[in-house]
Amino acid sequence: MSFFADTTVVATGPDAAGLGHFDTHLRPGWDIGGNANGGYMLAIVARAIALHCERPDPITITAHYLNPGKVGPAEVFCETVKSGKRFATTHAQLRAFDRPLLQVLATFGDLSQATEAPEMIDGRPPDLPEPEACRPSDSDEGIAPPFLGKVDLRLHPDDAGFRRGEPSGEACIRGWFRLPESEQVSPWAMLLGLDAFPPTIFNARLPMGWAPTVELTCHIRARPAPGWLRARFTTRFVSGGFLEEDGELWDSEGRLVAQSRQLGLVPRTVA
Amino acid sequence: MSFFADTTVVATGPDAAGLGHFDTHLRPGWDIGGNANGGYMLAIVARAIALHCERPDPITITAHYLNPGKVGPAEVFCETVKSGKRFATTHAQLRAFDRPLLQVLATFGDLSQATEAPEMIDGRPPDLPEPEACRPSDSDEGIAPPFLGKVDLRLHPDDAGFRRGEPSGEACIRGWFRLPESEQVSPWAMLLGLDAFPPTIFNARLPMGWAPTVELTCHIRARPAPGWLRARFTTRFVSGGFLEEDGELWDSEGRLVAQSRQLGLVPRTVA
Repeated sequence: MSFFADTTVVATGPDAAGLGHFDTHLRPGWDIGGNANGGYMLAIVARAIALHCERPDPITITAHYLNPGKVGPAEVFCETVKSGKRFATTHAQLRAFDRPLLQVLATFGDLSQATEAPEMIDGRPPDLPEPEACRPSDSDEGIAPPFLGKVDLRLHPDDAGFRRGEPSGEACIRGWFRLPESEQVSPWAMLLGLDAFPPTIFNARLPMGWAPTVELTCHIRARPAPGWLRARFTTRFVSGGFLEEDGELWDSEGRLVAQSRQLGLVPRTVA
Repeated sequence: MSFFADTTVVATGPDAAGLGHFDTHLRPGWDIGGNANGGYMLAIVARAIALHCERPDPITITAHYLNPGKVGPAEVFCETVKSGKRFATTHAQLRAFDRPLLQVLATFGDLSQATEAPEMIDGRPPDLPEPEACRPSDSDEGIAPPFLGKVDLRLHPDDAGFRRGEPSGEACIRGWFRLPESEQVSPWAMLLGLDAFPPTIFNARLPMGWAPTVELTCHIRARPAPGWLRARFTTRFVSGGFLEEDGELWDSEGRLVAQSRQLGLVPRTVA
């Protein structure tokens, strides 16, 4: 089994199969300041849901973040509320040390079934210098969260200035994403890609730090082609103590493969 | 009690309070071709959640649409999975005639608690002619869904041409929204406003009809000021058999009060 697949593996729990109880483990090194990355935890839940509802791919998945995840054993509890011809809808909870970490609601299906339907694309992949010309995100010793050593993530040089105290002024982050050793990015691994980049607001000239995620919704449109994914994240509205962050992933064939939106909390205390 | 508040009322069910069982009724006239409007059903679920978790306002709420809703008695079952200092997270199901209609995951809070936090707004309310100069959405006999008689909804004339077979060519719908008799729009009534307008794709030149909603997520940023709300809905990506529709509601003081994104299904059979 390859690296990310192994890192997010779940096993049927001690209850009988069908009850939707899975055992897993939050591994070391996937954290930001000691708390497991949200996309990493969501990928684990997605794998449990796929096993439980017997559909391979997340189509739309929403997570509400309840408590920080720490290294150690964890469990996923799934309940499928509708299993239809094309889709199955499941709610799930990731728990550890007797606390809920993520509450998840998802509809899964099979993205290998090609559809004949009209298409319209009003947008394009972000223009990026070649990956070699972009800064690896783990190159800032002591600044980059540990989990960035686990993924291959390169920021557009124009969007990387915040690291030296020079935000671009636009709440936008663009870059490349792939898994180590060129492991194929699955739909559930894209859930990691949609929550792995630095917050857009690091590039806005706002006096604030990390904005905790309240909720993240990801739409997976297609299984990506092999190779790097291009990512773009933008924020338009910081208001009422909240902000949204919209994400797009485009595959190496120039196809939109995933969209995301998360609701983050603006820290009340201004630095 | 005023009209929409009365129409979406829920009552504690036969079980003891605290178990999260509520009785309600899907009223006649809220349908599109016999199926209850999705925002109307979501508003009902939101009212049950507010009672159950004892927080007044939806902050982020996601619904997966499982089966069409018909006129008649219905029940909401709620379970709060975390009740924190600022927010409570609840999952809920709307059921009728022994079938699940909506599966919902939501985080509620209190939007009357003002926050001191940085703001940044990259956008503005849509420019609209005065409501009197916009076409009431229920003015097309035999075309408009029945439920449009229940709300006061006016389309921008530039976006209303699809009704006479002249789509604008842009997947965009703009207009005004309010409740009858100027009933104040509550945060949960905005869930109706975010799902009441005609689909954006009616203005795209695509050979397709109604796109059923798989999932709808709404972020409520603030309680709206009295008066009309301005709405804008756009779609950028129709691909892989899916489309997203992004919504914004702005209040009479020019403030962004809600955002939404829904994932719709593009009919496979092209007309």
